[in-house]
Amino acid sequence: MLGRVNHIALVVPNLAEAAAKYRSVLGAAVTAPDALPEHGVSVVFVTLENTKVELLEPLGSDSPIAAFLAKNPAGGMHHICYEVEDIIAARDSLVAAGGRVLGDGQPKIGAHGKPVLFLHPKDFFGTLIELEQV
Amino acid sequence: MLGRVNHIALVVPNLAEAAAKYRSVLGAAVTAPDALPEHGVSVVFVTLENTKVELLEPLGSDSPIAAFLAKNPAGGMHHICYEVEDIIAARDSLVAAGGRVLGDGQPKIGAHGKPVLFLHPKDFFGTLIELEQV
Repeated sequence: MLGRVNHIALVVPNLAEAAAKYRSVLGAAVTAPDALPEHGVSVVFVTLENTKVELLEPLGSDSPIAAFLAKNPAGGMHHICYEVEDIIAARDSLVAAGGRVLGDGQPKIGAHGKPVLFLHPKDFFGTLIELEQV
Repeated sequence: MLGRVNHIALVVPNLAEAAAKYRSVLGAAVTAPDALPEHGVSVVFVTLENTKVELLEPLGSDSPIAAFLAKNPAGGMHHICYEVEDIIAARDSLVAAGGRVLGDGQPKIGAHGKPVLFLHPKDFFGTLIELEQV
């Protein structure tokens, strides 16, 4: 079921500062910041040879990552996004195996304009998993 | 400086259970478990198309990941390992920029038999970064 690692998402308290550090100290290619109010985040991507690191800062008053940052004020690792070919088939297979999909179980259109789902971290040893149909 | 993402490391409380779940529920290729007493971990790799996920369970009484698991009993995301061409040059550049290398600052031979260093998570927004010379 799991295809490529599409990205690893890290929450940071200050996106401009984090982007500058990844660029200047770690020597990585970093995209321009993008505000995604419909997702409650601002984002930059650190573009690596084989995958991406997504740096996320909360945007707006009901950001889905605000609670994470309140619990981890310095920031931290937030989720891994895997690519799948068929997100409905993946969801149905996971649910049949006892897995829980967050929200109403229907794929949403994610930050890349593709259908995404999130799986309950309690079902996967404390790691939040995003599936993205590509 | 940063090359490929070599792996994303997740700590799990029970390696056999986690390996079985990644194999059977997520449909991923998972290697046989490997005990690395000199590193204080047992490990399996989830082999993906473009990178690897490393599942880690503490091994022995002074495992370097025991404290993480005590703080996160369900498990969780532990670190990201990036490949670099020259780990000494990478270290010297990071230290010159004010970054802190964990331990005595000398590369150790990591789980893959290659020189590795870990960077202080407080310098990188709460994310533990491993550098591996490949």
